[in-house]
Amino acid sequence: MDLGGALRAIADCSVLDDADAVAGYVVDWTGRWRGGPAIVARPRTVEAVARVVRACAAAGVPVVPQGGNTGLVAGAVPPAGAVVLSLTGLDAIGEVADGAVVAGAGVTLAALESFAAARGLTCGLSLASGESATVGGAAATNAGGAEVLRYGTARARIAGLRAVLPDGAVLDRRRPPPKDNTGYDLVGQLVGSEGTLAVLTDVTWRLDPAPCARTVVALAFPSVPDAVGAVPALRGLPGLLALEWSDGAAVARVAAHLDAPAPLPTDGCWVFAELDAPLSDAAALAELLPDDRIAVAEAEDRARLWRFRARTTEAVNAAGVPVKLDVGVPLAGFAAALEAISGAVRDAGDAAAVAVEPVLFGHLAEGNVHVNLLPGPSVPDRRFPEELAARLEAAVLERVLAAGGTISAEHGIGRAKRAWLPRQRGAEQVALMRRIKAAWDPAGLLNPGALVDGAASGENGRLQ
Amino acid sequence: MDLGGALRAIADCSVLDDADAVAGYVVDWTGRWRGGPAIVARPRTVEAVARVVRACAAAGVPVVPQGGNTGLVAGAVPPAGAVVLSLTGLDAIGEVADGAVVAGAGVTLAALESFAAARGLTCGLSLASGESATVGGAAATNAGGAEVLRYGTARARIAGLRAVLPDGAVLDRRRPPPKDNTGYDLVGQLVGSEGTLAVLTDVTWRLDPAPCARTVVALAFPSVPDAVGAVPALRGLPGLLALEWSDGAAVARVAAHLDAPAPLPTDGCWVFAELDAPLSDAAALAELLPDDRIAVAEAEDRARLWRFRARTTEAVNAAGVPVKLDVGVPLAGFAAALEAISGAVRDAGDAAAVAVEPVLFGHLAEGNVHVNLLPGPSVPDRRFPEELAARLEAAVLERVLAAGGTISAEHGIGRAKRAWLPRQRGAEQVALMRRIKAAWDPAGLLNPGALVDGAASGENGRLQ
Repeated sequence: MDLGGALRAIADCSVLDDADAVAGYVVDWTGRWRGGPAIVARPRTVEAVARVVRACAAAGVPVVPQGGNTGLVAGAVPPAGAVVLSLTGLDAIGEVADGAVVAGAGVTLAALESFAAARGLTCGLSLASGESATVGGAAATNAGGAEVLRYGTARARIAGLRAVLPDGAVLDRRRPPPKDNTGYDLVGQLVGSEGTLAVLTDVTWRLDPAPCARTVVALAFPSVPDAVGAVPALRGLPGLLALEWSDGAAVARVAAHLDAPAPLPTDGCWVFAELDAPLSDAAALAELLPDDRIAVAEAEDRARLWRFRARTTEAVNAAGVPVKLDVGVPLAGFAAALEAISGAVRDAGDAAAVAVEPVLFGHLAEGNVHVNLLPGPSVPDRRFPEELAARLEAAVLERVLAAGGTISAEHGIGRAKRAWLPRQRGAEQVALMRRIKAAWDPAGLLNPGALVDGAASGENGRLQ
Repeated sequence: MDLGGALRAIADCSVLDDADAVAGYVVDWTGRWRGGPAIVARPRTVEAVARVVRACAAAGVPVVPQGGNTGLVAGAVPPAGAVVLSLTGLDAIGEVADGAVVAGAGVTLAALESFAAARGLTCGLSLASGESATVGGAAATNAGGAEVLRYGTARARIAGLRAVLPDGAVLDRRRPPPKDNTGYDLVGQLVGSEGTLAVLTDVTWRLDPAPCARTVVALAFPSVPDAVGAVPALRGLPGLLALEWSDGAAVARVAAHLDAPAPLPTDGCWVFAELDAPLSDAAALAELLPDDRIAVAEAEDRARLWRFRARTTEAVNAAGVPVKLDVGVPLAGFAAALEAISGAVRDAGDAAAVAVEPVLFGHLAEGNVHVNLLPGPSVPDRRFPEELAARLEAAVLERVLAAGGTISAEHGIGRAKRAWLPRQRGAEQVALMRRIKAAWDPAGLLNPGALVDGAASGENGRLQ
């Protein structure tokens, strides 16, 4: 029996191999990365996941675990001939116990937050892609988002996991004891491992009391250095949930896209502070900026102000196919690094006679910058030629490394940044990571080509 | 040049090989576990640590990293012929930045807390052995203690690490970016790895604002089920820092040892709640117990009440050489598990015609039980014969496994519990841990015989 037949014989598992049906599984969220051809297996039970993994192992065919497929680094884009193991069919949510709930890997973040909200709780992970992104994907990529400041990244939210190992065995640590020092931390190692070590099937997610009120404060600083200088004062605001930023030009772009006037000047750098209470200390803000550069919104008005940050990605996507990077820069050199990045991409564009429009925004508390680069209006299809896209990426990442930053703050490495990983972590650490990969997945079955490019990918000719 | 000569040639490193000088490094805290003969190397710089590791690797001699040597599972007791790599010479403390401080592995927890307290902060890790235990040891064992409820185990306190790998290379993640998804989590894997994967030289420790006031409430419940039943209500007390428990007999033992009358009845089970504020809700306590079973102490009176819990180990050690186990049991079956444990050890003692006195106490919030077993007064040297000690351990751990608990809540596996690890985690997970060990330490240089007994220990005949 061929692999397709073997997969179809598995109970509680749908199999797709028609090109139209698999189309959405082999291309990434941005449309920039495309893989396949591939078969898609969509099991609905953990036992079926294990059987898919065993069937693929027996056939020597690589497995690419996939959640909501909202990643931005091609971490779930399948190599030719691989099986995409979609976990979206594992969508059950259990009961809250010991402050956490066991959710199937395919539960969306929106469904988890809705489950939590109905109980006066929050999952503490807020992503723009939450309607599609899954808890399994969030765990596999150690997802971050807007509320890391308060709740930490996914790693801090995860109290346990269940996973299928590459030999089909099930590692069940859904409810480990609250204190348990019995060997290496296997759960922690799986968080952020991007589907290269095991297939996550369930995540035990910590829930916190939901904030009872939310206030959004927008501050339009005249410049990036002014905004960065205000961070210590803003961090002191009682009840701070999030501290975001957008370049003034990014805010102006959102305003144009929404056809809604920005309520503050867009000449410099906006900072958005979200609080879990009414603003109690307006005096602290008055020391930072004059009144006409501050807007405060509560209750229903909140979304009208917050949208100038929240809908940036939508405004970018409406204008073209962006090159998207997610980097982190130390706050001490933040403004200089942004200038260097903007200058470098403009230079790269000039050299190719292509206009480049940088759209910069992100999570200020952690120095996290989402670099979105758009081709100017005259570029065909508003899409950079792939060679220029690669040069733009390189221009950004070189500047980030020079500034002592990180080439991936929250999006991960996937396939898109793999070549850059040794520059960030050094050959010694990458070699160690490769040995860790081989310890978990000796045959290189899982997600070959992603992250550290395990032993089986490319090197043994299994993949084109 | 022999290994001793090679070590002595290393700058900034003391070497001890005289039997008297090394005596304190080859026997554990309880006196029960004894290793060696061994050479002790005590480097004072990270470079010297790397040179010691390289010299031992070249000579094929195992290295046993050691902090304050306060472990209770023989995790730092050297096999014959090994080099003890004492990290106590790395005792520098850096500056506080981004809410954390880089401390040398040899900084004691007491020194770290004193550094923190001088700045209005706390390290959030409170161990009875804090005057000797080091931050490196706390990281290597994922130490817990009394305040896990509030601050988490060591894992939650650690923002970064520096470590020397088995080939002498230095892994420097002291100040990783606040968000950084660039590959597998190497720092997290080292926490709790018990010196088997790398030698920790520095730990970046998170500091929190110190509690401004502390109140201790002792509640003398008539029985263990009563105490367990009160946990949800006690968890609701505002400002809860710790929720500890002692069997009434353990409190009576401390009272006799201190020659101080216990202020409440010792007929059942005491619970100690520590709050970071004055007691604001006495009514909540009144619903749990009558007044004459509750004691509340603030300010200077606090230590006088807290000592009935804090000085248990001292009272035990004064009475003989205990068999010490550290287990966790789900609260739902807590009382039944304690009865089963007490019954099983009494039976084991009866079978050997030796009186066994169980002393039970621990951290109630996590169902954590420190089982201390003392031989009755008529036993020679107040020390169990080793064969009976092993049978008592087995009796306890069997009951813990049957109750769905953990054989090590916070002390780790070391050499003492290694044989039990497969019972807890299963052969599949232990095999995976062995492969992880080999990924980090292919030659089995570090701490052979501990935790998962890496490839080089025993199997290649290097150790007796």
